[in-house]
Amino acid sequence: MFYHDKQLQYTVRVDTPSPVFAKMLQQAIGGVEGEIRVCLQYLFQSFGARGPAKYRDMLMETGTEEIGHIQMLATAVAMNLEGAPNFLKEAMAKADPMLAATLGGMDPRQYLSAGMAALPADSNGVPFDASHVYASGNLAADMYSNVAAEATGRALACRLFEMTDDPGMKDMLRFLIARDTMHQQQWLAVIEELGGHPGSLPIPNSFPQDEELTEYSYDFFATGIEGVDPPAGRYTEGPSLDGRGEFRVRIARPLGQEPKLAPPIPQAYAEAQQMMDLPDKS
Amino acid sequence: MFYHDKQLQYTVRVDTPSPVFAKMLQQAIGGVEGEIRVCLQYLFQSFGARGPAKYRDMLMETGTEEIGHIQMLATAVAMNLEGAPNFLKEAMAKADPMLAATLGGMDPRQYLSAGMAALPADSNGVPFDASHVYASGNLAADMYSNVAAEATGRALACRLFEMTDDPGMKDMLRFLIARDTMHQQQWLAVIEELGGHPGSLPIPNSFPQDEELTEYSYDFFATGIEGVDPPAGRYTEGPSLDGRGEFRVRIARPLGQEPKLAPPIPQAYAEAQQMMDLPDKS
Amino acid sequence: MFYHDKQLQYTVRVDTPSPVFAKMLQQAIGGVEGEIRVCLQYLFQSFGARGPAKYRDMLMETGTEEIGHIQMLATAVAMNLEGAPNFLKEAMAKADPMLAATLGGMDPRQYLSAGMAALPADSNGVPFDASHVYASGNLAADMYSNVAAEATGRALACRLFEMTDDPGMKDMLRFLIARDTMHQQQWLAVIEELGGHPGSLPIPNSFPQDEELTEYSYDFFATGIEGVDPPAGRYTEGPSLDGRGEFRVRIARPLGQEPKLAPPIPQAYAEAQQMMDLPDKS
Amino acid sequence: MFYHDKQLQYTVRVDTPSPVFAKMLQQAIGGVEGEIRVCLQYLFQSFGARGPAKYRDMLMETGTEEIGHIQMLATAVAMNLEGAPNFLKEAMAKADPMLAATLGGMDPRQYLSAGMAALPADSNGVPFDASHVYASGNLAADMYSNVAAEATGRALACRLFEMTDDPGMKDMLRFLIARDTMHQQQWLAVIEELGGHPGSLPIPNSFPQDEELTEYSYDFFATGIEGVDPPAGRYTEGPSLDGRGEFRVRIARPLGQEPKLAPPIPQAYAEAQQMMDLPDKS
Amino acid sequence: MFYHDKQLQYTVRVDTPSPVFAKMLQQAIGGVEGEIRVCLQYLFQSFGARGPAKYRDMLMETGTEEIGHIQMLATAVAMNLEGAPNFLKEAMAKADPMLAATLGGMDPRQYLSAGMAALPADSNGVPFDASHVYASGNLAADMYSNVAAEATGRALACRLFEMTDDPGMKDMLRFLIARDTMHQQQWLAVIEELGGHPGSLPIPNSFPQDEELTEYSYDFFATGIEGVDPPAGRYTEGPSLDGRGEFRVRIARPLGQEPKLAPPIPQAYAEAQQMMDLPDKS
Amino acid sequence: MFYHDKQLQYTVRVDTPSPVFAKMLQQAIGGVEGEIRVCLQYLFQSFGARGPAKYRDMLMETGTEEIGHIQMLATAVAMNLEGAPNFLKEAMAKADPMLAATLGGMDPRQYLSAGMAALPADSNGVPFDASHVYASGNLAADMYSNVAAEATGRALACRLFEMTDDPGMKDMLRFLIARDTMHQQQWLAVIEELGGHPGSLPIPNSFPQDEELTEYSYDFFATGIEGVDPPAGRYTEGPSLDGRGEFRVRIARPLGQEPKLAPPIPQAYAEAQQMMDLPDKS
Repeated sequence: MFYHDKQLQYTVRVDTPSPVFAKMLQQAIGGVEGEIRVCLQYLFQSFGARGPAKYRDMLMETGTEEIGHIQMLATAVAMNLEGAPNFLKEAMAKADPMLAATLGGMDPRQYLSAGMAALPADSNGVPFDASHVYASGNLAADMYSNVAAEATGRALACRLFEMTDDPGMKDMLRFLIARDTMHQQQWLAVIEELGGHPGSLPIPNSFPQDEELTEYSYDFFATGIEGVDPPAGRYTEGPSLDGRGEFRVRIARPLGQEPKLAPPIPQAYAEAQQMMDLPDKS
Repeated sequence: MFYHDKQLQYTVRVDTPSPVFAKMLQQAIGGVEGEIRVCLQYLFQSFGARGPAKYRDMLMETGTEEIGHIQMLATAVAMNLEGAPNFLKEAMAKADPMLAATLGGMDPRQYLSAGMAALPADSNGVPFDASHVYASGNLAADMYSNVAAEATGRALACRLFEMTDDPGMKDMLRFLIARDTMHQQQWLAVIEELGGHPGSLPIPNSFPQDEELTEYSYDFFATGIEGVDPPAGRYTEGPSLDGRGEFRVRIARPLGQEPKLAPPIPQAYAEAQQMMDLPDKS
Repeated sequence: MFYHDKQLQYTVRVDTPSPVFAKMLQQAIGGVEGEIRVCLQYLFQSFGARGPAKYRDMLMETGTEEIGHIQMLATAVAMNLEGAPNFLKEAMAKADPMLAATLGGMDPRQYLSAGMAALPADSNGVPFDASHVYASGNLAADMYSNVAAEATGRALACRLFEMTDDPGMKDMLRFLIARDTMHQQQWLAVIEELGGHPGSLPIPNSFPQDEELTEYSYDFFATGIEGVDPPAGRYTEGPSLDGRGEFRVRIARPLGQEPKLAPPIPQAYAEAQQMMDLPDKS
Repeated sequence: MFYHDKQLQYTVRVDTPSPVFAKMLQQAIGGVEGEIRVCLQYLFQSFGARGPAKYRDMLMETGTEEIGHIQMLATAVAMNLEGAPNFLKEAMAKADPMLAATLGGMDPRQYLSAGMAALPADSNGVPFDASHVYASGNLAADMYSNVAAEATGRALACRLFEMTDDPGMKDMLRFLIARDTMHQQQWLAVIEELGGHPGSLPIPNSFPQDEELTEYSYDFFATGIEGVDPPAGRYTEGPSLDGRGEFRVRIARPLGQEPKLAPPIPQAYAEAQQMMDLPDKS
Repeated sequence: MFYHDKQLQYTVRVDTPSPVFAKMLQQAIGGVEGEIRVCLQYLFQSFGARGPAKYRDMLMETGTEEIGHIQMLATAVAMNLEGAPNFLKEAMAKADPMLAATLGGMDPRQYLSAGMAALPADSNGVPFDASHVYASGNLAADMYSNVAAEATGRALACRLFEMTDDPGMKDMLRFLIARDTMHQQQWLAVIEELGGHPGSLPIPNSFPQDEELTEYSYDFFATGIEGVDPPAGRYTEGPSLDGRGEFRVRIARPLGQEPKLAPPIPQAYAEAQQMMDLPDKS
Repeated sequence: MFYHDKQLQYTVRVDTPSPVFAKMLQQAIGGVEGEIRVCLQYLFQSFGARGPAKYRDMLMETGTEEIGHIQMLATAVAMNLEGAPNFLKEAMAKADPMLAATLGGMDPRQYLSAGMAALPADSNGVPFDASHVYASGNLAADMYSNVAAEATGRALACRLFEMTDDPGMKDMLRFLIARDTMHQQQWLAVIEELGGHPGSLPIPNSFPQDEELTEYSYDFFATGIEGVDPPAGRYTEGPSLDGRGEFRVRIARPLGQEPKLAPPIPQAYAEAQQMMDLPDKS
């Protein structure tokens, strides 16, 4: 179960409130790269963990840390909105372009729906949706989902860092960026524990590989039409990363049939003409 | 631009149609681990690619391949529904438990909305939603998003393989599983081209690392209350994967303040009592 | 403004309640082809109608009718659930396959969330979402959106008709199918008032057609690769439907350039390698 | 910030695993009446709390408790799926109606996407979406949102209690139902602290009531057509609950004009006929 | 069934059109606190009403009233967009900051998708989604859901009132705010009819309370770690609101076990390492 | 299966980048009227086509063309963002109203989530959702869905044309508008092949029309209250479009009963008062 205290994990300070930055910060709360997503993702991976308990426990540690990140960012949004009330009505009334621009750049729901606070939504106001919580039951798949989350999360935090000159906000982001650095490597370290590429690939590594059509398992398919050269890279020649094959290029051409479905059944009520025996059936 | 021919990339054959399996297959079409997602993800990464053109071109190759996978799976769904018409009405009318069970296990919209064909939705009928298309503009972040997609995709295909005894379906899945094997390693091979962990981490590696608070960059935060031992692993000691730090455990305790927001502004219409100067403000 | 009385627009009678049919009926309430959609669509087209008031008024007539259709179907769902309570617990406890099948074929939320009543959701339990309310401000576009809604709606009602042997339900569906017949032709009659194809096409017909690249306005683009014959039909030769062009087939080949985007800007934090001057830039 | 230990808040025991009940339990995790919703709702109300700190603190207490409820239910789902693997493949292969019915009544994604674990989704597999997190910045509005959540939540838990005969599951639900009892009254107790109906209504009570059109503030509008009698109740006569008015019935008839919008502007590209000066403009 | 006439329920007048206010008004149409939600919520509660018919009838009265509120607000949006066409193109072409700010503050889809009319979406353009329609089958739960809707709805209307100086818009909002005042008390009056707190709590009051674990039914759980004082209030001591218990504070500590799930089953294709008998299983 | 080459279908050129126009263009990519929708719609109609193969083939031609339109528009978005980096930070730092307005008018996620590229979302940042992919299995219904898509799509393109003065963008839109012209008529030409209105109506035309209640099949229902005149038009008198009936006006009054549902069942846990035998049951 879970506990809390009253302090934030790291200081949140806003020197010059900015309603426009308050909108940008929403991406780090409820965006697909944001903290609600990683929090729920790590917790659900932990709640459903089967196998070595150490991974269940580690995931709970970091999932719990992320609740505190949501709290920090929600606090940062509220603080960036402190100055807003003074200009809202003025912006409506006066023809001051700077006020009007700030109003246009705000998230209206931070005022209308939340009374000057953060929303569990992204920077366009789209609510967070838990379909982004990846917890597959396969440890390696989950670790790569986590690396992807922390990589896009750190890119987002760096871009937010770029959008502000506020010393308090920059300090908070420096902390969050550092944590993303750690978390990227934390998940990749699990892959290393699993034996790296040879030990973990292909994911899931518990499926007997001779069941798959291995003649296509290490082929780069070039799908360009005639005259389009296939690209070359580490993935087009040399040993495969799992050490069990050799990368090759294959010009992709159909290996299958032309699909012909049975005619419509009467109960599905296609148009009558679809059910006639027409001569043009190629 | 894009072209097509009339054949499928690989043979799709259904020996014994199963409406229940037709529902399961939807996950591979419109699920978060499915083919619409990877198709759009690779194409959008390609369309927005900046930097070396070889990655733009490679992404287009594989994105184009995935359109054909959607086609294969949609064809497989339609073929698994061939037998359905015969029992639909019977299942309603008769008290035959096997028919009733099949009806209960079907996706009703494959009949009601599509007239016995596939939907761009998952196995619970939830429509695909393009928020799952990750294309961050950072090559390494995108490659890990792609590995995550192909790892969960291969796990899904293996589970579908387990759910069917149909030789035709098993053959198709063998092909798709093999392609997922390739694609996992294809994206990881790009990471290798970027120099592996030392060359690509932390993502984005273009953010000057001395801007982040590096004292927290390689610390595993243990957030358990007193008495809860922190887990140990590759991520708690030893050199960090990027070679620039040393993993450590830190008992996580607040580094920040207790958050106190300014009182509500009149224009936000909190309850009057929230705006009074109450003695209990702790 | 709006009024109501206490009766239903048409009799709703259920002779033999069926929880499985109660789930199917949800598609006609909250599905994309359902009544909430057409109700809101016609009302929003009416509320935003600009131009001749007669169309605003007609849309309000039919939008108001559709509220009553939602009511009829919601009543039908509740009536089909009457028998359910008796077997719910039994189905859990006993190993009776017929009860178990019925339970599996029910919408669990009709019980868990609504206490045996209809939901504003489709037959897979996906809530209705108002993005399906098309009201474009262009009368002809809206009429075709309405025809599409009533055509898929009537197909749905016919398929539901097929799924039941209950005389009461069949009678109700006979009525709803008849109303869809009318509504399809009602919207097409407006197109006829606008002058049919010559008078309404291309939609919007108020855009000066010499602004568009008319050399591509009546060409069927064949996008197949070499060896794939283009299909032939009314749309590949003969006068265009608006009477202003001649249909032709054009083998589609690129008219544009290879897209090359500028390199990533530093503020977007791509990987460093994406910003280097690499020799492989094709 | 937040902490955890390794135990559950209350014992979770499953005596006889049931994959069908595992699907039902999803509603209590990711449904609109479920635990993710109340957890995020109380935490966001706390994070954005302005005014007396005691409410901020109380909300954090209960928001933290709810994380543990998510954990309990996710654990219960996983435990109810323990028996599932044995029959999955059999159900596909054999014509055993009991197995087939169980398969039809399962959530396919608990297997396909999560490898036999809980999803952050409802009992129809629709992912949780944070638009259900109400945190308005007005304390009384939030308390009523919380009562609504706990009232529908307790109704859900009671219905789940009805669906199972498993002693372990019944024991867990007895605990959760008791907590809902407390939480309902906890939020209503805050209303009592605010002075009950006279002290808190109308919400927000900080809007100067003489700004509203008070002649309509205590009128029940009867919108029925002629011949439909208005209903009578506590809300049609007697003093209003806030003590500032008298309830009355008013036969609702239009107080406003017939809406006539300006003709379409050329830039919006309505059909040309909508922009003509037609005689039928009523 | 339903009827209409041609007038609005109350006058809608816009003295100075404002495209920015047109965007804000969307929240009152398609936001979670908006009119589509309450309209569908009251109608679905009415359509599914079981028990005393007077509540069914009352809900239909108010549900019908709300259709007219959607109409008023949609009309208000269209009227606020009247002036827009004149500056749209200018704003693109000229470097006039006031025009540019207005353009930035508009909802682009009101023009692009609706040709200068309202959308069934919120102020960020997120379409209304009917998962917000609460109709639980329990009268008291529904009444509190309705109070919550009208409380957040009135807060929203007050905030919109604050954002405009237009006399016509202020007059319309005065009317809508008054109706929200009535509706809040209307739903609470039903609770009073049910006997107030003692008569209605805990909701549902039909579940036999001795089935729940009453030792936890009136306890405030303090989940803070050591050193965090539990908050005090009406909910921590004194008689419970239903008169059947005594509020108490309990320091929340685990009452349950450490969750240990069974190892992964082979058919779920976890990584092989998750299925080994590892020594670190704590 | 599918192929590609390296060129765009038509030239994409941006003379003066505009981040605000980059946001508007999103509607043509991921909006309900956009290219992802028509692409998937035509491909799914093709993948599920039953009946004459010529329609399957034709749909694949145009579905394939539309992939290239997504590519063109995604390229156009990226090109319109080229200039953006230079002002992003300045806009934050300086009080320059023109920069601030541009920032307010941008889609923040094009920078934050995509690093200056297009998203599969609409102009408000709402992700594309595949519930808009209509593929009903009935050819005529699908053709009208396609006409609706191309009519709203052309209206959108014309409005975008209006919003830009950039010669390159105008040229690209001229091409896309021309293609929409063709596609509208292409789908209507199929209706002509099916025999026009007499041959295709009512859709589906395979349902035996004597099963429907034909006495309501050609009646315009006037749902206005007394005193509201029904509108008149092509749909109120004269032969029906399918040639099988005569349009008429009918004053809509209830043909059905007052709905009375059975009392709540105990297992659904309504409030106890709902289950009492109250005298007010009307």
